[in-house]
Amino acid sequence: MTRKILVLPGDGIGPEITAQASRVLAACQARGLDVEVEEAPVGGTAYDLHGTPLPDSTLDRARAADAVLLGAVGGPQWDAIEDISKRPEKGLLGLRKELGLFGNLRPALLYPQLAEASSLKPELVAGLDIMIVRELTGGIYFGQPRGIEERDGQRVGFNTYIYSEAEIERIGRVAFEMAQKRGKKLCSVDKANVLEVTMLWREVMERLAPEYPDVELTHMYVDNAAMQLVREPKQFDVVVTGNMFGDILSDAAAMLTGSIGMLPSASLNESGQGMYEPCHGSAPDIAGQGLANPLATILSVAMMLRYSLGENALAERIEAAVGKVLDDGLRTADIAPQGGPYVSTVEMGDAVLAAL
Amino acid sequence: MTRKILVLPGDGIGPEITAQASRVLAACQARGLDVEVEEAPVGGTAYDLHGTPLPDSTLDRARAADAVLLGAVGGPQWDAIEDISKRPEKGLLGLRKELGLFGNLRPALLYPQLAEASSLKPELVAGLDIMIVRELTGGIYFGQPRGIEERDGQRVGFNTYIYSEAEIERIGRVAFEMAQKRGKKLCSVDKANVLEVTMLWREVMERLAPEYPDVELTHMYVDNAAMQLVREPKQFDVVVTGNMFGDILSDAAAMLTGSIGMLPSASLNESGQGMYEPCHGSAPDIAGQGLANPLATILSVAMMLRYSLGENALAERIEAAVGKVLDDGLRTADIAPQGGPYVSTVEMGDAVLAAL
Ligand SMILES: CC(C)[C@H](C(=O)O)[C@@H](O)C(=O)O
Ligand SMILES: CC(C)[C@H](C(=O)O)[C@@H](O)C(=O)O
Repeated sequence: MTRKILVLPGDGIGPEITAQASRVLAACQARGLDVEVEEAPVGGTAYDLHGTPLPDSTLDRARAADAVLLGAVGGPQWDAIEDISKRPEKGLLGLRKELGLFGNLRPALLYPQLAEASSLKPELVAGLDIMIVRELTGGIYFGQPRGIEERDGQRVGFNTYIYSEAEIERIGRVAFEMAQKRGKKLCSVDKANVLEVTMLWREVMERLAPEYPDVELTHMYVDNAAMQLVREPKQFDVVVTGNMFGDILSDAAAMLTGSIGMLPSASLNESGQGMYEPCHGSAPDIAGQGLANPLATILSVAMMLRYSLGENALAERIEAAVGKVLDDGLRTADIAPQGGPYVSTVEMGDAVLAAL
Repeated sequence: MTRKILVLPGDGIGPEITAQASRVLAACQARGLDVEVEEAPVGGTAYDLHGTPLPDSTLDRARAADAVLLGAVGGPQWDAIEDISKRPEKGLLGLRKELGLFGNLRPALLYPQLAEASSLKPELVAGLDIMIVRELTGGIYFGQPRGIEERDGQRVGFNTYIYSEAEIERIGRVAFEMAQKRGKKLCSVDKANVLEVTMLWREVMERLAPEYPDVELTHMYVDNAAMQLVREPKQFDVVVTGNMFGDILSDAAAMLTGSIGMLPSASLNESGQGMYEPCHGSAPDIAGQGLANPLATILSVAMMLRYSLGENALAERIEAAVGKVLDDGLRTADIAPQGGPYVSTVEMGDAVLAAL
C-alpha cells in the first residue's frame, strides 16, 4: 500500500531545508520505498497565500497523510499581524492540536564529530544522549480561559495551565516505554512545590511507575532541571515534562550539543501518525542564502521512516549517510569551526545523497 | 535610629549559613552599624514547632523589620505533608506575598577566582555579569483559580498565569532603572508567540521604553533565552521576566557561573524593605556537616546593607572581604577543585571575619 507523506516547507529557511530532505525521500523511493509525496503551504507563507496560517486544504491533506514533514514557521514580516489567531505559529500549533500529536520526542544527541561545537567543556558532553519527551497538545499552550481583558479598570492578561489525569497518563506511558528502550531512567520534571497542576502530574507519574518496574523514575523541579542540564547533562536519559517546560528545557538541552542544526524531532499521535521537524526555527536572518543546515530535516526523515513508516533499515541508512558526511569533514556554516570552510545547503544535500 | 533586621535561618543548611552571616552582621555592629538583630522560625522548622511554615509571630516581626535575611527552606521530611498550604515553601511564598516583595534581583556573576568551576568553556563566561530581575509576587505562582478537582469524571489540575498592567509596569520600572545603572541593555523574556499574558507583558515593556531612552530594550522568547544563556551568556546585561520563567532562567544563569554557592539575591517591595537570601536551596543532603558555603548568605548581607540600609561602604567592605578570602585560595567543598582541599562553613566564616 502506497503511503502518503505531506511536506510543509513553511517559512524562512524552511523551503531550502525541506528541499534537501525531499531529495533524500526521492532517493528512498528510487530504492523501493512506496510513498507518495505532496507539498502544501503552512505558516506565514500560507497566510500570504490564503489569509490563514493553516488553510483547510493543508489540514485535510495532513489528516490524510501517514506522516508530515515540516520545515519551520515564522518570521518578522508576520509579527505585526494583529489577529493572533493568524500568526504563523498558529499554523504549527493548529496542526499539533488537530492531528492530536501529543507526544513530542526531542533528542539531544552530541555527534562525536562535532564535540567541539558545544559551549560546555568537552568532558561534560562527550557521548551526550538525552531524549526529551514533551507533552504537545495540552498544558498552558491550549488551556482555557485565556486572553487579555479589562478587570477593575485595568487590563490583565491570563492563560490557564491545565492537565487532566488522562492527558498525563498518555504522555507518561510514551516516556516510560521510551525509557524501557533506552537507558531505563526516566526523570519527570515539574514544579510540584508550587503548582497544583504539576502535583497531579507527579502523582500520575508515580501511579504509572509500578507498571514499568525496569524503569527508575525520579522527579525534579523545573528550576533544578534547568541547572542540572547545564551542570551535568549526562545524568539524564529520558526526561518527561509538560508543554511549556518541555519547550524551554528541550531548547536548552539541544543547545548543549552546540549543533541545534543537527537535531530532528517527532510528534506522534495515538495511531502512530507523526509530524517530523527539525528542532531549530525558521532562521529568517539567513533564509535564501544557502547557509542553512539541512541535516536536522534529513534526520527528521529518518525519524519518520522509523516511527511512522516502520522502515528501520532505511532510517539507519540515512543516519549512516549523515555520519559519513560528518566523518568526511563536511560542515555547513552553523557547525563549521570559526573561520573554517563550509558548504552550502545544497552541497550538503548532494553529499548526503552521494553517501546514501 | 536603630534599624531592625530579622534573621530567618529556615531548614537544611539554613541555620549554618545564616550563623556565619550573623557573625558578619555582628562585626558590622561592632564597627558602628546601628541595627537590632532578631531570629524567628520559618519553613519546615516552623511547621515542626508551630504547625505552620509561616507563624503569625514570624510574619509580624518580618513586617516590622527593615530587612529580612533568609537562609533556605524545604527538605524531604516535609514532602509528605498532605496539606500543601503547610509545606515549607509556602512559608517563603507567604513572606514574599505578604511583604509585597515583587522585585527579585538575582545576579549571575562569575568570580574570576572561580572561573574554572563553570561547566562552560572559560572564554564564554570570563567576566560574566548578568542581573536577572524576576517578578516575585504575581504570575502563575499566585494566580487564581488554582487547584485539583473532578471534571467530567476525571481529575484535572490547573493554575492561572495572570498579570495586570500595573504589575508588569512596576517590575518593568525596576528593570529599566537597573539597566540604567549597569550596561544599559534590557532583555525582556516572554512567550508572546503563544501566551496572551506575555503579549500584554511585551506591550507594557514597549510602552515604558521611551521613558528610558538610554536603555536598549529587546525581547526574547523564553525557549530562545534558555538556549542563548547556554550558547553565549555574555550577550545579556539585565534580563526581566515573570515569576516562573524567572525561577527557571535565574537558576540556569546562576549555574553558568559554576558557583551557585556564591550568589546572593534581593527581593524588594515598594518601600525599599527587602528580604535577602542565597540563590541556592536548603541542600538537606549536606545539612549539619559543615560543608555548606556561607558566602552567598554573607554576600546577601552586603546586598541588604546596600539596598535596604543605604550602607554602601559597609557593603563594599564585605564584598572586598569575600574577594580577599577567594584570592587567598580558601574554598568550601562546593567551589573547591575536584579532590582539592577545602574548609568548613565555620572556617570560611572565620576567614571572612578576619578579612573584614
Ligand atoms: C514556534 C513555537 C510556537 C513552538 C513552541 O513553542 O512549541 C516552538 O518554540 C517549538 O518548540 O516547537
Ligand atoms: C522554593 C521555591 C518555592 C522557590 C521558587 O520557586 O520561587 C525557589 O525555587 C526560588 O527560586 O526561590
